Amino acid sequence: MKRIAVMTSGGDSPGMNAAIRAVVRYGIKSGLEVYGIKRGYAGLLDEDIEPMTFASVGGIMERGGTILRSSRCPEFVRKETRAEAAKILKKHGIDGLVVIGGEGSLHGAMFLEEEQKIPVVGLPGTIDNDIAMTDMSIGVDTCLNTVVDAIQKLKDTASSHERAFIIEVMGRSSGYIATVSGLVTGAEAVIIPEVPVNYEELGNKLLEERERGKINCIVVVAEGAASAYTVARHLEHRIGYETRITILGHIQRGGSPTAFDRLLASRMGVAAVDALLRGESYVMTALQGGKIVTVRLDEVLKEKKRLDMELVRLAGILS
Amino acid sequence: MKRIAVMTSGGDSPGMNAAIRAVVRYGIKSGLEVYGIKRGYAGLLDEDIEPMTFASVGGIMERGGTILRSSRCPEFVRKETRAEAAKILKKHGIDGLVVIGGEGSLHGAMFLEEEQKIPVVGLPGTIDNDIAMTDMSIGVDTCLNTVVDAIQKLKDTASSHERAFIIEVMGRSSGYIATVSGLVTGAEAVIIPEVPVNYEELGNKLLEERERGKINCIVVVAEGAASAYTVARHLEHRIGYETRITILGHIQRGGSPTAFDRLLASRMGVAAVDALLRGESYVMTALQGGKIVTVRLDEVLKEKKRLDMELVRLAGILS
Amino acid sequence: MKRIAVMTSGGDSPGMNAAIRAVVRYGIKSGLEVYGIKRGYAGLLDEDIEPMTFASVGGIMERGGTILRSSRCPEFVRKETRAEAAKILKKHGIDGLVVIGGEGSLHGAMFLEEEQKIPVVGLPGTIDNDIAMTDMSIGVDTCLNTVVDAIQKLKDTASSHERAFIIEVMGRSSGYIATVSGLVTGAEAVIIPEVPVNYEELGNKLLEERERGKINCIVVVAEGAASAYTVARHLEHRIGYETRITILGHIQRGGSPTAFDRLLASRMGVAAVDALLRGESYVMTALQGGKIVTVRLDEVLKEKKRLDMELVRLAGILS
Amino acid sequence: MKRIAVMTSGGDSPGMNAAIRAVVRYGIKSGLEVYGIKRGYAGLLDEDIEPMTFASVGGIMERGGTILRSSRCPEFVRKETRAEAAKILKKHGIDGLVVIGGEGSLHGAMFLEEEQKIPVVGLPGTIDNDIAMTDMSIGVDTCLNTVVDAIQKLKDTASSHERAFIIEVMGRSSGYIATVSGLVTGAEAVIIPEVPVNYEELGNKLLEERERGKINCIVVVAEGAASAYTVARHLEHRIGYETRITILGHIQRGGSPTAFDRLLASRMGVAAVDALLRGESYVMTALQGGKIVTVRLDEVLKEKKRLDMELVRLAGILS
Repeated sequence: MKRIAVMTSGGDSPGMNAAIRAVVRYGIKSGLEVYGIKRGYAGLLDEDIEPMTFASVGGIMERGGTILRSSRCPEFVRKETRAEAAKILKKHGIDGLVVIGGEGSLHGAMFLEEEQKIPVVGLPGTIDNDIAMTDMSIGVDTCLNTVVDAIQKLKDTASSHERAFIIEVMGRSSGYIATVSGLVTGAEAVIIPEVPVNYEELGNKLLEERERGKINCIVVVAEGAASAYTVARHLEHRIGYETRITILGHIQRGGSPTAFDRLLASRMGVAAVDALLRGESYVMTALQGGKIVTVRLDEVLKEKKRLDMELVRLAGILS
Repeated sequence: MKRIAVMTSGGDSPGMNAAIRAVVRYGIKSGLEVYGIKRGYAGLLDEDIEPMTFASVGGIMERGGTILRSSRCPEFVRKETRAEAAKILKKHGIDGLVVIGGEGSLHGAMFLEEEQKIPVVGLPGTIDNDIAMTDMSIGVDTCLNTVVDAIQKLKDTASSHERAFIIEVMGRSSGYIATVSGLVTGAEAVIIPEVPVNYEELGNKLLEERERGKINCIVVVAEGAASAYTVARHLEHRIGYETRITILGHIQRGGSPTAFDRLLASRMGVAAVDALLRGESYVMTALQGGKIVTVRLDEVLKEKKRLDMELVRLAGILS
Repeated sequence: MKRIAVMTSGGDSPGMNAAIRAVVRYGIKSGLEVYGIKRGYAGLLDEDIEPMTFASVGGIMERGGTILRSSRCPEFVRKETRAEAAKILKKHGIDGLVVIGGEGSLHGAMFLEEEQKIPVVGLPGTIDNDIAMTDMSIGVDTCLNTVVDAIQKLKDTASSHERAFIIEVMGRSSGYIATVSGLVTGAEAVIIPEVPVNYEELGNKLLEERERGKINCIVVVAEGAASAYTVARHLEHRIGYETRITILGHIQRGGSPTAFDRLLASRMGVAAVDALLRGESYVMTALQGGKIVTVRLDEVLKEKKRLDMELVRLAGILS
Repeated sequence: MKRIAVMTSGGDSPGMNAAIRAVVRYGIKSGLEVYGIKRGYAGLLDEDIEPMTFASVGGIMERGGTILRSSRCPEFVRKETRAEAAKILKKHGIDGLVVIGGEGSLHGAMFLEEEQKIPVVGLPGTIDNDIAMTDMSIGVDTCLNTVVDAIQKLKDTASSHERAFIIEVMGRSSGYIATVSGLVTGAEAVIIPEVPVNYEELGNKLLEERERGKINCIVVVAEGAASAYTVARHLEHRIGYETRITILGHIQRGGSPTAFDRLLASRMGVAAVDALLRGESYVMTALQGGKIVTVRLDEVLKEKKRLDMELVRLAGILS
């Protein structure tokens, strides 16, 4: 192992820069040359590759986004495209590849090794927390705090008026962000893909709480379960009072990463280099019980991370 | 002057609690009894009135929203309703009324004095910064910082992808929030009610900037000019790449008030009590050139605050 | 089990309110009466005890500090004092006690059960992260983010001047806060109780880095290792340039708790009630590998949590 | 006017980057060449000067500190040094100089024009708010919010314990930061250079408030009035309970600038270029009554900005 490369791929998440920094600094200190591939697999195919130094990663840990930029690269599903990518990696003398991204990106990495024998190590980077076998992915903690901060601001104004506030948060297939952010802000209801919503029941619950004197009414919706507009239409009809909508959108991907995400990303970045150095690949770094371990890529990708239903129960108890 | 009352009315804005606190503390220290009226004019009509003490305003300065709650009260446009309100105020022995709110609320206050001879002092409290004759209204500075923080988060992720981000902010009739937040974040474009938008020109500008290598693309839209969805439709068509939408909604009203808003609200609250104590009413407190002054309510309300077009020019120069 | 009580004791930490809220809400929903004891063991001895309702814990989750207040109670080391406390608990019909606090407070709880047969469940609440057998204590994550935010602000100004900045953070016996905050901000050096400091070596390292062109210089010191003034004196002498000192003090205990701390505290609060309901006591709730478990109080308290030396190594690699 | 230069000098303050950005962008758009001088007058003497482009100021508005770095340059008090500086400026063909900094830096600029006929425009950049003839200097608003945030965190923990908290903030000759931050957080006392402190009276006031049941006790001290340690010693002795100390230090200079500071800096940067373009110099840009104006440098520097004693009165009323 003499030269490795690092890339970020798919949707960006806060903490990716801390991971890049750890790979670069620790890689160089371990005697490797480290290259950065721009814009994920798309940049790889364009040979948008450059050597990284300590200076390239100076002052980046605290910044959201990814200095290597990112992209989705639909053509990477084709085997021929991956063969081309492997050729480019070999041409540049790259012996190992670190890929930071979500499920799709890790799939790409897995096939690169399976088919093309490029040693790869994946890092789970996604705000959705939907990667299996790791307790947390890079970016989830920051995203949660951003959402919680937004809901908290809504509560300020919600306590001053008689209205229901509906906030749509990220989560196409996972209700993790919605559930936890609702739980820790005492939201009145959470609507997630994992649990079918019954608008009649929900409307009744909100009406009852209002009758008991509750003046806040916050409903958190995961985008994968319904749009805020749909929820509003259903509720206004049933509860007979106005609703107001917030769609946070991509601000959930931004922001300076929290201490947790910086630490997680730094540890995983170092662990990825350590794995490559000892000849281990076809793995993803994972947080399990407070420890950073490596798990086989095919095992990670064969299952979907399930939402801990205990959190849903807690959200019910504590709302 | 022996007994005064304070209320918040219309849309809440951060800093209202600091104003309430100043009225209550300074009123009591000046030998007055101070009452709080809940839920604006609606609560007044319901006689939802209670005495305030130092304890009622303990620890509220840092909190968003308004502890007195607020409401819109459409029936207050009727003279008979206002006569009823005046009767209630007299019944409770209230000699002076402090109203914190936006244009509609100040109109109500003006008529209460004109028709019913209730001495009133208004405080401009609205995030829209659309009240004339005062440099700033209570809540504007906090709202601006909330919007700036959100745009900054979008920029993190915008720099990582090739997309345009459209963020819809408050401002039904005023483009102040959109213009200033766009200006101080270097947004690529700002769409406001005061300036007609030409989507073809805008599309060309964005395409040119992209060709020159700019990787961010943020467009800030005031809700009164267009919806984010309309802007997105127009732009996607012209620029040929994806857009992503954020609608901040009522989080713009929330949040712990900034130092500026707390100071402004505290000064205005004390000034309102001072005015009543010296027998001055039918006025609004205003910030003019760093000083707190009082201006006649009818003069304030006969004009609309105009957006300083120099800010629009600056936003153009600096974007 | 019919009536339980909850208290916070010792130094407060952010998230304690979320734990109180969870105990009260879940306790009541489970059919228990829940009492709050004010000011820790001192308040217990003063019979400062009152019933808690849903309303008592409304809107508290997002607030720092503890609504039950806290205190240190040195006389609780005496067995007779604890006997008196037990008598008071029995007089009030309290069948189970939930104690949220650090090591000293948990010791008190342990003896209450050992000697006086009061069923107790402890929750680890301390910003020091020095409680054994749990991955994290309530408040640590918020504290870390506060410290990181402060260091980040120092870096802004440090990059503009040729100076060394020394920041003293909490940690009388544990270097956890100093190590992790230094690690995730790329601080040049971390001084902690667990590792003896060699000022000559440190001075040389800083001089070398400056010669290599590094313009920031941040040193993080745990209060238990040295005072910032001592470090400054040693360094100025050796490196020959000015130092500037920041002592964060108790702001490290404050602030709205992060999502992580709110979730941890909520889960632990519910787990504490669940334990009492199933007749389990003499335990502390703990986070182990992402799960909330209970561990015996005597086992927790017989050892000191050790700082993970891998973090120290990482801080070295990544600084 | 063909070529201008911009520099930051003295203590840095948040918003300096926004001012640099405005000078560079607007200068270039106006047909000028714009140069950046590194490390203030020291860098000027070292000819540390480079051309600036749009790219040099990309993404800097939101960052604290100054990308041009800064320094104090004691030798600039000598006329010969200034003559040398002027020679360097002329050698580089620089027709106009924009200096962003505090009183000392503006003095340097004034003499450069008086003696050496270099056209200069100053921008007031200091967190102390001690520059005369302008309502606010660049950085003050951000600094205030940083201090307020810190005090708010102290209040969380102060409400949980029976202690007095003393926080030392910046302000060698001005009590502005201490007074306003104390005012808007409801601190129990403020100690500033402008008003002699009577520890006996202060001790009695704190004791009385405690007897009346107040559980918070926060004292804000401007560094120019006393050190936090001195205050603590005086108070502990008199009030007989513990104090805790926070010294914020240079974190008060850091942080992403607020919307207010970014706007102020942007407007002043544009105004400085406008002044030079129309042949106006020997002036400082100033905020007066919401407008940006220019004022003569010698008039600014012949007086000291006085603290508005109304703020001190308000702090007394509202604490």
